[in-house]
Amino acid sequence: MAEKLIGAAIFGQSGGPTSVINASAYGVIRAALDAPEITNVYGMAHGIMGVLNETLYDMSREDDEELRLLLNTPSSALGSCRYKIKNEDDLKRIYEVLAKHDIRYFFYNGGNDSMDTCSKVSDYLETVGYQCRVMGVPKTIDNDLYGTDHCPGFGSAAKYIATSVAEVQKDAYVYDVGTVTIVEIMGRNAGWLTAASSLAALSDAAPDLIYLPELPFDLDKFLSEVEAVYKEKEKCLVAISEGAQYADGTFVSHAKVSATDGFGHAQLGGTAVTLAGIVGKKLGVKVRGIELSLLQRCAAHIASQTDIDEAYLAGKSAVEYAVNGGTGKMVAFTREEKNGKYHCGITYQPLSICANTEKKIPREWINAHGNNVTQEFIDYALPLISGENSRKLNNGLPRFAKLKKIVV
Amino acid sequence: MAEKLIGAAIFGQSGGPTSVINASAYGVIRAALDAPEITNVYGMAHGIMGVLNETLYDMSREDDEELRLLLNTPSSALGSCRYKIKNEDDLKRIYEVLAKHDIRYFFYNGGNDSMDTCSKVSDYLETVGYQCRVMGVPKTIDNDLYGTDHCPGFGSAAKYIATSVAEVQKDAYVYDVGTVTIVEIMGRNAGWLTAASSLAALSDAAPDLIYLPELPFDLDKFLSEVEAVYKEKEKCLVAISEGAQYADGTFVSHAKVSATDGFGHAQLGGTAVTLAGIVGKKLGVKVRGIELSLLQRCAAHIASQTDIDEAYLAGKSAVEYAVNGGTGKMVAFTREEKNGKYHCGITYQPLSICANTEKKIPREWINAHGNNVTQEFIDYALPLISGENSRKLNNGLPRFAKLKKIVV
Repeated sequence: MAEKLIGAAIFGQSGGPTSVINASAYGVIRAALDAPEITNVYGMAHGIMGVLNETLYDMSREDDEELRLLLNTPSSALGSCRYKIKNEDDLKRIYEVLAKHDIRYFFYNGGNDSMDTCSKVSDYLETVGYQCRVMGVPKTIDNDLYGTDHCPGFGSAAKYIATSVAEVQKDAYVYDVGTVTIVEIMGRNAGWLTAASSLAALSDAAPDLIYLPELPFDLDKFLSEVEAVYKEKEKCLVAISEGAQYADGTFVSHAKVSATDGFGHAQLGGTAVTLAGIVGKKLGVKVRGIELSLLQRCAAHIASQTDIDEAYLAGKSAVEYAVNGGTGKMVAFTREEKNGKYHCGITYQPLSICANTEKKIPREWINAHGNNVTQEFIDYALPLISGENSRKLNNGLPRFAKLKKIVV
Repeated sequence: MAEKLIGAAIFGQSGGPTSVINASAYGVIRAALDAPEITNVYGMAHGIMGVLNETLYDMSREDDEELRLLLNTPSSALGSCRYKIKNEDDLKRIYEVLAKHDIRYFFYNGGNDSMDTCSKVSDYLETVGYQCRVMGVPKTIDNDLYGTDHCPGFGSAAKYIATSVAEVQKDAYVYDVGTVTIVEIMGRNAGWLTAASSLAALSDAAPDLIYLPELPFDLDKFLSEVEAVYKEKEKCLVAISEGAQYADGTFVSHAKVSATDGFGHAQLGGTAVTLAGIVGKKLGVKVRGIELSLLQRCAAHIASQTDIDEAYLAGKSAVEYAVNGGTGKMVAFTREEKNGKYHCGITYQPLSICANTEKKIPREWINAHGNNVTQEFIDYALPLISGENSRKLNNGLPRFAKLKKIVV
């Protein structure tokens, strides 16, 4: 039995928003407010920046019903950041602020880079001998976090992508003239989201060709594959990752590579438009490039209920684990079967191995031609998108949580 | 009492798809199959092209349950076209095919251009003395058809746009760095769809600025308005019509104007990206351009139930009116109140006045500064997006209608 640790808790959200990141927030905040060991619950304004600037919200002063609405409110309700811890000065500052408010529980919700932040904070606090339990809560639509079967956020983005691609396929096939439609989907280095377009097969409307960043992109091969489909059907629907790159490492869309996000990652986009231009010229057919853009990470209206439930569970589990003595871990999911049905289990992974390690789609889940996925991927992804959410509406439009965000 | 007319019926879909065009199809097909006067029901393969090519589907051989699924299947199930009737040869050919199959009822579903086709067919058949009742069924996400309070297709597109803009607003406001987000929305000459972004106010997430094609676009005014909002909030969310144009008539996005659709309309797009580039350079802030693209016309997953019901009613009413002797009309909607609540009534307008007349947003519904809409617009649009649809799913993905399309 671990020593009982009495003190305040803090929670922050980092990196790109998802449809369900606030469901994890609700899981953490609700469980922390309810835990007798936790004296108060603070929210970081814009993730770790809120600690560095000492801008903390008092979560105990929020209305219970509004907090519950976080389950169906997309994006990061407390604000996000892409700040990467620079040096020991940052860590010292974080320690000072935590100590000042007697914060003994630190929960951080994000992807690879956020787990790195979490890991550094955990190590530093141990070094200086400040007793604080540090837990990472996974979050990324990209589904590329190591050590977990899947990530909260992926299921909802996958559901949006599969549904939208199915609808676009219906639209793309409508005219009596031939068309090639190229849909560009998020995912810098891992193709999980682009692969999710294959689920449109459940609507008999899957893309004809799917190109993932796991394999080098070959323009000649691509053009001949598009041409072959077009010759047969007079239509061709392509799904391609924004991160598609040639064998030499240059992105198919180099146009936007100059701009970078705060972590030094290239800001991608324009792959569909670039390829549409090439296809139109080479094959002389009507083409359309569609970028799903950031709608795929914020479309809470079609969030998967499975994903919402699991995101909530991840947050709640982090608090329970920490209260029981756990620290330095990221909550992770296992895939189990219960009565022959998919069931999500919880495990805990060392923060250090989750940080900065990317999980890609295994080669066996991509077909031999490298232009589609196999049934294994569909079997993997399908349970994650199941369940329709029951969001609250106001005259047919989403009723999002309204937080007071009272600064301490 | 009109003379009883016995014979077959034909139905076709034309122009750009919508989320509910197939609900009108179901309204026509179901009512026609059930009408004792109607001996058989044919579907045109790709609208009027199907008549010209004599490619007709036998709708009586479809499965009832699959036909019913048309209520929630986006795009044009029978295929669409953008063919404009060229000359008397076309009309003569149409007459021949109709006469050959003893078709006495002609139903055509589309926007302005389709009503023009309908009107020409009606006039020609009258000239040659071939007894056939010709009815137009309105359809356009653009909501710009004259003679009707609103159009089937608009409510669902408006619901998708308002919901997506609300979600994008949550996303755009997430970081601690300032951003300007520009969302480009469909609508060539009329701003109904762009104006629908204002409904995101119901989610407390409306755009800060809305620019409609009804007013000339002034770049300096736009930049100073964006700057003013940005100075106050460090954020700015703009909704702008793809059709925004300067006082001299050039489109804000001239890049894509060279390509045209089959009716000679410019194919627009790129307004958001063009303006994002200008804003980024002039104001030196982070910007993002988002094009909702064709998702806004095919997102049946969030179709308004009111819109589905009304689209179905429009189709059904066309058949009932024709069977009772009516011809040469377009089904139109009136706005009535029943017990203090919105109620949609049916009326019939001459095809000739509906064809090629565009209905724009009245100036009084745009604010004095020309950068937002007034409450009148919100009151007008809100009832049209209400009601959540109950679509059939297959493992969390849409189960669309599967038609056999047996060619006669």
